[in-house]
Amino acid sequence: MIEVLLAKMRQQRPEFASGHVWLAGAGPGSLELLTIGVLAAVAEADVIVYDALVNADLLDYADANADLIYMGKRAGEPSASQDAINERIIDLARQNLRVLRLKGGDPFIFARGGEEAVALHEAGIPFRILSGVTAAIGGAASARMPITMRGVNNALVLMTGHDRAGVTELNWPALAQLDQPIAIYMGMTHLATLAERLIDGGMAAQMPVAIIQNATRPNEKILVTTLSDAVRDAERENIRSPAVVYVGRVVPVGEELRQLAGEMV
Amino acid sequence: MIEVLLAKMRQQRPEFASGHVWLAGAGPGSLELLTIGVLAAVAEADVIVYDALVNADLLDYADANADLIYMGKRAGEPSASQDAINERIIDLARQNLRVLRLKGGDPFIFARGGEEAVALHEAGIPFRILSGVTAAIGGAASARMPITMRGVNNALVLMTGHDRAGVTELNWPALAQLDQPIAIYMGMTHLATLAERLIDGGMAAQMPVAIIQNATRPNEKILVTTLSDAVRDAERENIRSPAVVYVGRVVPVGEELRQLAGEMV
Repeated sequence: MIEVLLAKMRQQRPEFASGHVWLAGAGPGSLELLTIGVLAAVAEADVIVYDALVNADLLDYADANADLIYMGKRAGEPSASQDAINERIIDLARQNLRVLRLKGGDPFIFARGGEEAVALHEAGIPFRILSGVTAAIGGAASARMPITMRGVNNALVLMTGHDRAGVTELNWPALAQLDQPIAIYMGMTHLATLAERLIDGGMAAQMPVAIIQNATRPNEKILVTTLSDAVRDAERENIRSPAVVYVGRVVPVGEELRQLAGEMV
Repeated sequence: MIEVLLAKMRQQRPEFASGHVWLAGAGPGSLELLTIGVLAAVAEADVIVYDALVNADLLDYADANADLIYMGKRAGEPSASQDAINERIIDLARQNLRVLRLKGGDPFIFARGGEEAVALHEAGIPFRILSGVTAAIGGAASARMPITMRGVNNALVLMTGHDRAGVTELNWPALAQLDQPIAIYMGMTHLATLAERLIDGGMAAQMPVAIIQNATRPNEKILVTTLSDAVRDAERENIRSPAVVYVGRVVPVGEELRQLAGEMV
Protein backbone atom coordinates (compact mmCIF):
# COMPACT_ATOMS: atom_id res chain seq x y z
CA MET A 1 0.00 0.00 0.00
CA ILE A 2 2.85 2.37 0.77
CA GLU A 3 4.25 1.49 -2.66
CA VAL A 4 1.09 2.97 -4.22
CA LEU A 5 1.65 6.20 -2.34
CA LEU A 6 5.33 6.26 -3.33
CA ALA A 7 4.36 5.75 -6.98
CA LYS A 8 1.86 8.62 -6.77
CA MET A 9 4.51 10.83 -5.18
CA ARG A 10 6.97 10.02 -7.97
CA GLN A 11 4.38 11.00 -10.59
CA GLN A 12 3.88 14.36 -8.92
CA ARG A 13 7.51 15.42 -8.69
CA PRO A 14 10.39 15.73 -11.19
CA GLU A 15 12.48 12.67 -11.97
CA PHE A 16 15.76 12.36 -10.05
CA ALA A 17 17.84 12.67 -13.22
CA SER A 18 21.50 11.88 -13.87
CA GLY A 19 23.73 14.88 -13.34
CA HIS A 20 21.28 16.45 -10.89
CA VAL A 21 21.85 17.17 -7.21
CA TRP A 22 19.11 16.96 -4.61
CA LEU A 23 19.83 18.71 -1.32
CA ALA A 24 17.73 16.90 1.24
CA GLY A 25 17.01 17.09 4.97
CA ALA A 26 16.89 13.84 6.94
CA GLY A 27 15.26 15.37 10.02
CA PRO A 28 16.61 15.43 13.56
CA GLY A 29 17.32 11.72 13.88
CA SER A 30 14.24 9.63 14.59
CA LEU A 31 13.20 7.42 11.67
CA GLU A 32 9.63 8.58 12.30
CA LEU A 33 10.60 12.04 11.09
CA LEU A 34 12.08 11.02 7.75
CA THR A 35 9.99 12.11 4.80
CA ILE A 36 8.95 9.71 2.06
CA GLY A 37 10.47 12.07 -0.52
CA VAL A 38 13.89 11.72 1.07
CA LEU A 39 13.46 7.96 1.48
CA ALA A 40 12.66 7.57 -2.21
CA ALA A 41 15.64 9.76 -3.15
CA VAL A 42 17.95 7.65 -0.96
CA ALA A 43 16.82 4.55 -2.84
CA GLU A 44 17.32 6.19 -6.25
CA ALA A 45 20.63 8.03 -5.75
CA ASP A 46 23.89 6.87 -7.34
CA VAL A 47 25.87 8.61 -4.66
CA ILE A 48 24.92 9.96 -1.22
CA VAL A 49 27.07 12.63 0.43
CA TYR A 50 25.96 12.68 4.04
CA ASP A 51 26.49 14.61 7.24
CA ALA A 52 27.34 13.65 10.80
CA LEU A 53 23.76 14.09 12.03
CA VAL A 54 22.07 11.78 9.52
CA ASN A 55 20.55 8.61 11.04
CA ALA A 56 22.68 5.76 9.68
CA ASP A 57 19.66 3.42 9.52
CA LEU A 58 18.48 5.52 6.60
CA LEU A 59 21.56 4.60 4.57
CA ASP A 60 20.57 0.92 4.71
CA TYR A 61 17.84 1.90 2.29
CA ALA A 62 20.34 3.08 -0.37
CA ASP A 63 20.89 1.07 -3.53
CA ALA A 64 23.50 -1.68 -3.05
CA ASN A 65 25.63 -0.09 -5.78
CA ALA A 66 25.38 3.46 -4.45
CA ASP A 67 28.49 5.19 -3.14
CA LEU A 68 28.08 6.50 0.41
CA ILE A 69 30.41 9.40 1.13
CA TYR A 70 30.70 10.80 4.63
CA MET A 71 31.42 14.53 4.70
CA GLY A 72 30.33 15.51 8.16
CA LYS A 73 31.21 18.48 10.26
CA ARG A 74 31.23 18.44 14.03
CA ALA A 75 32.30 21.18 16.37
CA GLY A 76 35.85 20.60 17.57
CA GLU A 77 36.69 17.80 15.13
CA PRO A 78 38.72 18.00 11.92
CA SER A 79 36.29 17.95 9.03
CA ALA A 80 35.76 18.80 5.39
CA SER A 81 35.54 22.52 4.64
CA GLN A 82 32.36 23.89 3.08
CA ASP A 83 34.33 24.65 -0.11
CA ALA A 84 35.54 21.05 -0.30
CA ILE A 85 31.96 19.79 0.09
CA ASN A 86 30.71 22.17 -2.62
CA GLU A 87 33.46 21.04 -5.00
CA ARG A 88 32.83 17.39 -4.29
CA ILE A 89 29.09 17.47 -5.05
CA ILE A 90 29.69 19.54 -8.21
CA ASP A 91 32.33 17.08 -9.37
CA LEU A 92 30.03 14.09 -8.74
CA ALA A 93 27.20 15.76 -10.69
CA ARG A 94 29.58 16.39 -13.59
CA GLN A 95 30.24 12.63 -13.63
CA ASN A 96 26.56 12.39 -14.59
CA LEU A 97 25.55 10.79 -11.32
CA ARG A 98 22.34 11.30 -9.36
CA VAL A 99 23.79 13.01 -6.30
CA LEU A 100 21.90 13.11 -3.01
CA ARG A 101 23.35 15.60 -0.55
CA LEU A 102 21.88 14.48 2.74
CA LYS A 103 21.93 16.66 5.85
CA GLY A 104 20.47 16.39 9.32
CA GLY A 105 17.36 18.53 9.89
CA ASP A 106 16.41 20.88 7.06
CA PRO A 107 18.97 22.00 4.45
CA PHE A 108 18.00 25.66 4.76
CA ILE A 109 17.86 26.01 8.56
CA PHE A 110 21.39 26.73 9.81
CA ALA A 111 22.73 23.83 7.74
CA ARG A 112 24.57 25.73 5.00
CA GLY A 113 22.34 24.31 2.27
CA GLY A 114 22.00 27.84 0.90
CA GLU A 115 25.73 28.02 0.23
CA GLU A 116 25.65 24.63 -1.50
CA ALA A 117 22.67 25.74 -3.59
CA VAL A 118 24.48 28.92 -4.66
CA ALA A 119 27.60 26.92 -5.58
CA LEU A 120 25.52 24.50 -7.67
CA HIS A 121 23.71 27.40 -9.31
CA GLU A 122 26.99 29.08 -10.22
CA ALA A 123 28.33 25.80 -11.61
CA GLY A 124 25.20 25.36 -13.73
CA ILE A 125 24.23 22.09 -12.02
CA PRO A 126 20.47 21.41 -11.87
CA PHE A 127 19.30 20.91 -8.31
CA ARG A 128 16.28 20.61 -6.03
CA ILE A 129 15.79 21.14 -2.31
CA LEU A 130 13.85 18.63 -0.22
CA SER A 131 12.89 19.98 3.14
CA GLY A 132 13.18 17.97 6.34
CA VAL A 133 11.88 18.38 9.87
CA THR A 134 14.23 20.82 11.57
CA ALA A 135 15.71 19.97 14.98
CA ALA A 136 14.10 22.79 16.99
CA ILE A 137 10.60 21.90 15.83
CA GLY A 138 10.94 18.10 15.82
CA GLY A 139 12.64 18.23 19.20
CA ALA A 140 9.92 20.40 20.72
CA ALA A 141 7.23 17.98 19.52
CA SER A 142 9.12 15.00 20.88
CA ALA A 143 9.45 16.78 24.23
CA ARG A 144 5.77 17.85 24.18
CA MET A 145 6.71 21.50 24.34
CA PRO A 146 4.26 23.62 22.29
CA ILE A 147 6.69 26.22 20.99
CA THR A 148 3.81 28.30 19.76
CA MET A 149 0.85 28.54 22.11
CA ARG A 150 -2.09 30.91 21.79
CA GLY A 151 -2.07 33.31 24.72
CA VAL A 152 1.63 32.67 25.39
CA ASN A 153 3.41 33.74 22.19
CA ASN A 154 2.72 34.98 18.67
CA ALA A 155 6.19 34.45 17.27
CA LEU A 156 9.18 32.16 17.57
CA VAL A 157 12.79 33.04 16.83
CA LEU A 158 15.09 30.40 15.40
CA MET A 159 18.74 31.39 15.60
CA THR A 160 22.23 29.96 15.48
CA GLY A 161 24.52 30.19 18.48
CA HIS A 162 27.55 31.05 16.42
CA ASP A 163 28.52 32.69 13.18
CA ARG A 164 31.81 32.67 11.27
CA ALA A 165 33.71 34.64 13.87
CA GLY A 166 32.30 33.25 17.10
CA VAL A 167 29.18 34.09 19.04
CA THR A 168 26.27 35.24 16.87
CA GLU A 169 26.11 38.92 15.94
CA LEU A 170 22.60 40.19 16.54
CA ASN A 171 20.75 43.17 17.90
CA TRP A 172 20.46 41.59 21.35
CA PRO A 173 18.34 44.30 23.02
CA ALA A 174 15.84 44.04 20.14
CA LEU A 175 15.76 40.25 20.52
CA ALA A 176 15.31 40.47 24.29
CA GLN A 177 12.60 43.13 23.98
CA LEU A 178 10.73 41.20 21.29
CA ASP A 179 9.98 38.92 24.26
CA GLN A 180 9.10 35.81 22.26
CA PRO A 181 10.49 32.28 22.61
CA ILE A 182 13.91 31.62 21.07
CA ALA A 183 15.31 28.31 19.83
CA ILE A 184 19.10 28.43 19.55
CA TYR A 185 20.80 25.90 17.26
CA MET A 186 24.39 25.04 18.12
CA GLY A 187 23.90 26.92 21.35
CA MET A 188 26.19 24.98 23.68
CA THR A 189 29.64 26.29 22.67
CA HIS A 190 28.82 29.90 23.54
CA LEU A 191 26.02 29.27 26.04
CA ALA A 192 27.48 31.55 28.73
CA THR A 193 27.84 34.45 26.30
CA LEU A 194 24.40 33.91 24.75
CA ALA A 195 22.73 33.96 28.17
CA GLU A 196 24.71 37.05 29.16
CA ARG A 197 23.76 38.92 25.98
CA LEU A 198 20.06 38.16 26.48
CA ILE A 199 20.15 39.25 30.13
CA ASP A 200 22.14 42.38 29.27
CA GLY A 201 19.58 43.04 26.52
CA GLY A 202 16.79 43.11 29.06
CA MET A 203 15.56 39.54 29.40
CA ALA A 204 14.79 38.26 32.91
CA ALA A 205 17.57 36.12 34.41
CA GLN A 206 14.82 33.76 35.61
CA MET A 207 13.43 33.23 32.09
CA PRO A 208 12.82 29.47 31.68
CA VAL A 209 15.25 27.53 29.48
CA ALA A 210 15.01 23.98 28.13
CA ILE A 211 17.99 22.29 26.50
CA ILE A 212 17.31 19.19 24.42
CA GLN A 213 20.32 17.09 23.50
CA ASN A 214 20.03 14.42 20.76
CA ALA A 215 16.41 15.44 20.15
CA THR A 216 14.09 12.62 18.97
CA ARG A 217 16.83 9.96 19.37
CA PRO A 218 16.88 7.13 21.91
CA ASN A 219 19.58 9.01 23.87
CA GLU A 220 17.54 12.25 24.04
CA LYS A 221 18.09 14.27 27.23
CA ILE A 222 16.00 17.23 28.38
CA LEU A 223 17.22 19.78 30.92
CA VAL A 224 14.91 22.49 32.28
CA THR A 225 16.65 25.46 33.88
CA THR A 226 16.76 29.26 33.71
CA LEU A 227 18.80 31.74 31.73
CA SER A 228 21.06 32.52 34.69
CA ASP A 229 21.55 28.87 35.72
CA ALA A 230 21.76 27.27 32.26
CA VAL A 231 25.55 26.97 32.06
CA ARG A 232 25.96 25.54 35.55
CA ASP A 233 23.06 23.08 35.17
CA ALA A 234 24.16 21.95 31.70
CA GLU A 235 27.65 21.24 33.02
CA ARG A 236 26.28 19.34 36.00
CA GLU A 237 24.00 17.23 33.77
CA ASN A 238 26.71 16.84 31.12
CA ILE A 239 24.50 18.22 28.34
CA ARG A 240 26.58 18.73 25.18
CA SER A 241 26.18 19.24 21.44
CA PRO A 242 24.17 18.43 19.42
CA ALA A 243 21.54 20.31 21.36
CA VAL A 244 18.91 23.01 20.91
CA VAL A 245 18.53 25.65 23.63
CA TYR A 246 14.97 26.97 24.06
CA VAL A 247 14.41 30.21 25.95
CA GLY A 248 10.94 31.46 26.86
CA ARG A 249 7.61 31.05 28.56
CA VAL A 250 6.67 28.01 26.46
CA VAL A 251 9.19 25.93 28.44
CA PRO A 252 6.94 25.44 31.53
CA VAL A 253 4.05 24.31 29.28
CA GLY A 254 6.26 21.49 28.03
CA GLU A 255 7.30 20.61 31.57
CA GLU A 256 3.65 20.30 32.59
CA LEU A 257 2.76 18.17 29.56
CA ARG A 258 5.60 15.72 30.31
CA GLN A 259 4.45 15.07 33.87
CA LEU A 260 1.18 13.20 33.56
CA ALA A 261 1.41 9.94 35.52
CA GLY A 262 1.04 6.73 33.55
CA GLU A 263 1.71 8.27 30.17
CA MET A 264 4.42 7.43 27.73
CA VAL A 265 6.83 10.30 27.34
CA MET B 1 12.75 -2.66 1.48
CA ILE B 2 10.75 0.26 2.82
CA GLU B 3 8.77 -2.29 4.87
CA VAL B 4 12.01 -3.20 6.68
CA LEU B 5 12.56 0.45 7.55
CA LEU B 6 8.96 0.83 8.72
CA ALA B 7 9.33 -2.26 10.92
CA LYS B 8 12.53 -0.84 12.43
CA MET B 9 10.77 2.47 13.05
CA ARG B 10 7.89 0.71 14.82
CA GLN B 11 10.35 -1.11 17.10
CA GLN B 12 11.93 2.19 18.10
CA ARG B 13 8.77 4.07 19.05
CA PRO B 14 5.82 3.38 21.39
CA GLU B 15 2.90 1.33 20.14
CA PHE B 16 -0.09 3.33 18.89
CA ALA B 17 -2.34 1.94 21.63
CA SER B 18 -6.12 1.96 21.98
CA GLY B 19 -7.39 5.00 23.85
CA HIS B 20 -4.35 7.06 22.88
CA VAL B 21 -4.29 10.20 20.75
CA TRP B 22 -1.43 11.06 18.42
CA LEU B 23 -1.29 14.68 17.27
CA ALA B 24 0.51 14.60 13.94
CA GLY B 25 1.66 17.05 11.29
CA ALA B 26 1.09 16.13 7.64
CA GLY B 27 3.41 18.81 6.25
CA PRO B 28 2.52 21.63 3.86
CA GLY B 29 0.85 19.50 1.19
CA SER B 30 3.31 17.69 -1.07
CA LEU B 31 3.37 13.94 -0.57
CA GLU B 32 7.19 14.18 -0.63
CA LEU B 33 7.07 15.99 2.71
CA LEU B 34 5.01 13.44 4.61
CA THR B 35 6.98 11.61 7.26
CA ILE B 36 7.01 7.84 7.51
CA GLY B 37 5.92 8.11 11.16
CA VAL B 38 2.74 9.89 10.15
CA LEU B 39 2.17 7.48 7.27
CA ALA B 40 2.42 4.50 9.60
CA ALA B 41 0.07 6.17 12.09
CA VAL B 42 -2.48 6.85 9.32
CA ALA B 43 -2.46 3.14 8.47
CA GLU B 44 -2.86 2.09 12.12
CA ALA B 45 -5.47 4.59 13.36
CA ASP B 46 -9.07 3.61 14.10
CA VAL B 47 -10.20 7.18 13.54
CA ILE B 48 -8.55 10.15 11.85
CA VAL B 49 -9.68 13.69 12.70
CA TYR B 50 -8.20 15.85 9.95
CA ASP B 51 -7.84 19.50 9.01
CA ALA B 52 -8.52 21.48 5.85
CA LEU B 53 -4.85 21.64 4.87
CA VAL B 54 -4.15 17.89 4.92
CA ASN B 55 -3.39 16.33 1.52
CA ALA B 56 -6.35 14.06 0.81
CA ASP B 57 -4.12 11.51 -0.99
CA LEU B 58 -2.73 10.65 2.44
CA LEU B 59 -6.16 9.50 3.62
CA ASP B 60 -6.20 6.80 0.93
CA TYR B 61 -3.58 5.08 3.05
CA ALA B 62 -5.96 4.78 6.05
CA ASP B 63 -7.39 1.41 7.05
CA ALA B 64 -10.58 0.57 5.14
CA ASN B 65 -12.48 0.40 8.44
CA ALA B 66 -11.12 3.65 9.85
CA ASP B 67 -13.47 6.58 10.41
CA LEU B 68 -12.33 9.78 8.67
CA ILE B 69 -13.69 12.88 10.36
CA TYR B 70 -13.20 16.29 8.80
CA MET B 71 -12.84 19.08 11.35
CA GLY B 72 -11.16 21.79 9.41
CA LYS B 73 -10.93 25.49 9.97
CA ARG B 74 -10.52 28.01 7.21
CA ALA B 75 -10.53 31.76 7.47
CA GLY B 76 -13.95 33.16 6.60
CA GLU B 77 -15.80 29.83 6.57
CA PRO B 78 -18.04 28.35 9.27
CA SER B 79 -16.08 25.68 11.07
CA ALA B 80 -15.75 23.66 14.25
CA SER B 81 -14.59 25.62 17.28
CA GLN B 82 -11.35 24.63 18.98
CA ASP B 83 -13.36 23.54 22.04
CA ALA B 84 -15.52 21.29 19.86
CA ILE B 85 -12.42 19.69 18.34
CA ASN B 86 -10.87 19.14 21.77
CA GLU B 87 -14.07 17.53 23.06
CA ARG B 88 -14.38 15.32 20.01
CA ILE B 89 -10.88 13.85 20.19
CA ILE B 90 -11.22 13.28 23.96
CA ASP B 91 -14.55 11.53 23.42
CA LEU B 92 -13.11 9.29 20.69
CA ALA B 93 -10.15 8.34 22.90
CA ARG B 94 -12.57 7.46 25.71
CA GLN B 95 -14.24 5.05 23.29
CA ASN B 96 -10.89 3.21 23.42
CA LEU B 97 -10.02 4.06 19.83
CA ARG B 98 -6.60 4.85 18.39
CA VAL B 99 -7.18 8.50 17.49
CA LEU B 100 -4.98 10.26 14.96
CA ARG B 101 -5.42 14.05 15.00
CA LEU B 102 -3.95 15.09 11.67
CA LYS B 103 -3.06 18.71 10.90
CA GLY B 104 -1.38 20.48 8.04
CA GLY B 105 2.25 21.47 8.72
CA ASP B 106 3.49 20.89 12.26
CA PRO B 107 1.07 20.59 15.20
CA PHE B 108 3.03 23.04 17.35
CA ILE B 109 3.68 25.81 14.81
CA PHE B 110 0.63 28.11 14.76
CA ALA B 111 -1.65 25.09 14.47
CA ARG B 112 -3.20 25.06 17.97
CA GLY B 113 -1.75 21.64 18.74
CA GLY B 114 -0.61 23.02 22.08
CA GLU B 115 -4.19 23.70 23.12
CA GLU B 116 -5.24 20.19 22.07
CA ALA B 117 -2.31 18.73 24.02
CA VAL B 118 -3.28 20.66 27.14
CA ALA B 119 -6.93 19.53 26.80
CA LEU B 120 -5.82 15.89 26.45
CA HIS B 121 -3.46 16.27 29.40
CA GLU B 122 -6.25 17.70 31.57
CA ALA B 123 -8.58 14.89 30.52
CA GLY B 124 -5.95 12.29 31.40
CA ILE B 125 -5.74 10.95 27.84
CA PRO B 126 -2.31 9.55 26.86
CA PHE B 127 -0.94 11.30 23.80
CA ARG B 128 2.12 11.81 21.60
CA ILE B 129 3.14 14.57 19.20
CA LEU B 130 4.52 13.72 15.76
CA SER B 131 6.18 16.68 14.12
CA GLY B 132 5.70 17.54 10.47
CA VAL B 133 7.45 19.85 8.02
CA THR B 134 6.06 23.31 8.70
CA ALA B 135 4.79 25.44 5.80
CA ALA B 136 7.31 28.28 6.07
CA ILE B 137 10.28 25.92 5.93
CA GLY B 138 8.92 23.42 3.41
CA GLY B 139 7.71 26.26 1.20
CA ALA B 140 11.06 28.03 1.28
CA ALA B 141 12.84 24.82 0.22
CA SER B 142 10.37 24.21 -2.59
CA ALA B 143 10.92 27.80 -3.78
CA ARG B 144 14.72 27.49 -3.41
CA MET B 145 14.83 30.34 -0.95
CA PRO B 146 17.53 29.72 1.70
CA ILE B 147 15.78 31.31 4.66
CA THR B 148 18.95 31.10 6.65
CA MET B 149 22.12 32.03 4.79
CA ARG B 150 25.54 32.62 6.29
CA GLY B 151 26.51 36.26 5.78
CA VAL B 152 22.87 37.29 5.26
CA ASN B 153 21.11 36.35 8.52
CA ASN B 154 21.72 34.64 11.84
CA ALA B 155 18.10 34.28 12.88
CA LEU B 156 14.66 33.73 11.45
CA VAL B 157 11.37 34.82 12.99
CA LEU B 158 8.28 32.68 12.50
CA MET B 159 5.08 34.50 13.43
CA THR B 160 1.35 34.38 12.93
CA GLY B 161 -0.47 37.21 11.16
CA HIS B 162 -3.34 37.23 13.58
CA ASP B 163 -4.18 36.43 17.14
CA ARG B 164 -7.53 36.02 18.90
CA ALA B 165 -8.52 39.64 18.55
CA GLY B 166 -7.20 40.48 15.09
CA VAL B 167 -3.77 41.51 13.89
CA THR B 168 -0.92 40.03 15.93
CA GLU B 169 0.15 41.88 19.07
CA LEU B 170 3.90 42.19 19.11
CA ASN B 171 6.65 44.64 19.94
CA TRP B 172 6.87 45.82 16.31
CA PRO B 173 9.82 48.23 16.72
CA ALA B 174 11.82 45.41 18.36
CA LEU B 175 10.90 43.06 15.50
CA ALA B 176 11.82 45.64 12.86
CA GLN B 177 15.10 46.49 14.57
CA LEU B 178 16.05 42.85 15.02
CA ASP B 179 16.48 43.09 11.24
CA GLN B 180 16.24 39.37 10.50
CA PRO B 181 13.97 37.57 8.01
CA ILE B 182 10.37 37.02 9.07
CA ALA B 183 7.99 34.31 7.89
CA ILE B 184 4.37 35.24 8.58
CA TYR B 185 1.81 32.42 8.72
CA MET B 186 -1.78 33.40 7.91
CA GLY B 187 -0.43 36.74 6.78
CA MET B 188 -2.90 37.62 4.03
CA THR B 189 -5.94 38.78 6.03
CA HIS B 190 -4.09 41.61 7.75
CA LEU B 191 -1.29 42.10 5.19
CA ALA B 192 -1.77 45.89 4.93
CA THR B 193 -1.60 46.32 8.71
CA LEU B 194 1.37 43.95 9.09
CA ALA B 195 3.36 45.86 6.44
CA GLU B 196 2.43 49.17 8.04
CA ARG B 197 3.49 48.04 11.52
CA LEU B 198 6.86 46.84 10.23
CA ILE B 199 7.49 50.08 8.32
CA ASP B 200 6.35 52.19 11.29
CA GLY B 201 8.66 50.06 13.46
CA GLY B 202 11.63 51.07 11.35
CA MET B 203 11.88 48.51 8.54
CA ALA B 204 12.65 49.81 5.04
CA ALA B 205 9.58 50.12 2.80
CA GLN B 206 11.69 48.57 0.03
CA MET B 207 12.49 45.43 2.08
CA PRO B 208 12.00 42.43 -0.24
CA VAL B 209 8.91 40.28 0.31
CA ALA B 210 8.01 36.89 -1.12
CA ILE B 211 4.53 35.44 -0.76
CA ILE B 212 4.09 31.73 -1.41
CA GLN B 213 0.54 30.49 -1.84
CA ASN B 214 -0.22 26.74 -1.66
CA ALA B 215 3.45 26.03 -0.95
CA THR B 216 4.76 22.67 -2.25
CA ARG B 217 1.47 21.86 -4.03
CA PRO B 218 0.92 21.66 -7.80
CA ASN B 219 -0.93 25.02 -7.65
CA GLU B 220 1.92 26.78 -5.81
CA LYS B 221 2.31 30.47 -6.69
CA ILE B 222 5.25 32.71 -5.76
CA LEU B 223 5.05 36.50 -5.75
CA VAL B 224 8.14 38.65 -5.16
CA THR B 225 7.48 42.23 -4.13
CA THR B 226 8.40 44.75 -1.42
CA LEU B 227 6.91 45.67 1.92
CA SER B 228 5.29 48.82 0.54
CA ASP B 229 3.93 47.16 -2.62
CA ALA B 230 2.92 43.80 -1.16
CA VAL B 231 -0.82 44.50 -0.79
CA ARG B 232 -1.21 45.98 -4.27
CA ASP B 233 0.85 43.23 -5.96
CA ALA B 234 -0.90 40.42 -4.07
CA GLU B 235 -4.28 41.80 -5.15
CA ARG B 236 -3.17 42.13 -8.75
CA GLU B 237 -1.82 38.56 -8.80
CA ASN B 238 -4.80 37.25 -6.83
CA ILE B 239 -2.63 35.69 -4.11
CA ARG B 240 -4.82 34.47 -1.25
CA SER B 241 -4.70 32.18 1.78
CA PRO B 242 -3.23 29.69 2.47
CA ALA B 243 0.02 31.58 2.04
CA VAL B 244 3.21 32.40 3.91
CA VAL B 245 4.60 35.94 3.68
CA TYR B 246 8.41 36.15 3.86
CA VAL B 247 10.06 39.50 4.62
CA GLY B 248 13.80 40.01 4.40
CA ARG B 249 17.06 39.96 2.53
CA VAL B 250 16.89 36.23 1.90
CA VAL B 251 14.14 36.83 -0.68
CA PRO B 252 16.49 37.96 -3.50
CA VAL B 253 18.70 34.88 -2.94
CA GLY B 254 15.68 32.72 -3.71
CA GLU B 255 14.83 34.78 -6.76
CA GLU B 256 18.34 34.27 -8.13
CA LEU B 257 18.27 30.53 -7.46
CA ARG B 258 14.97 30.13 -9.33
CA GLN B 259 16.27 31.79 -12.49
CA LEU B 260 18.86 29.43 -13.89
CA ALA B 261 17.98 28.57 -17.48
CA GLY B 262 17.28 24.94 -18.25
CA GLU B 263 16.68 23.90 -14.69
CA MET B 264 13.59 22.39 -13.19
CA VAL B 265 12.00 24.70 -10.67
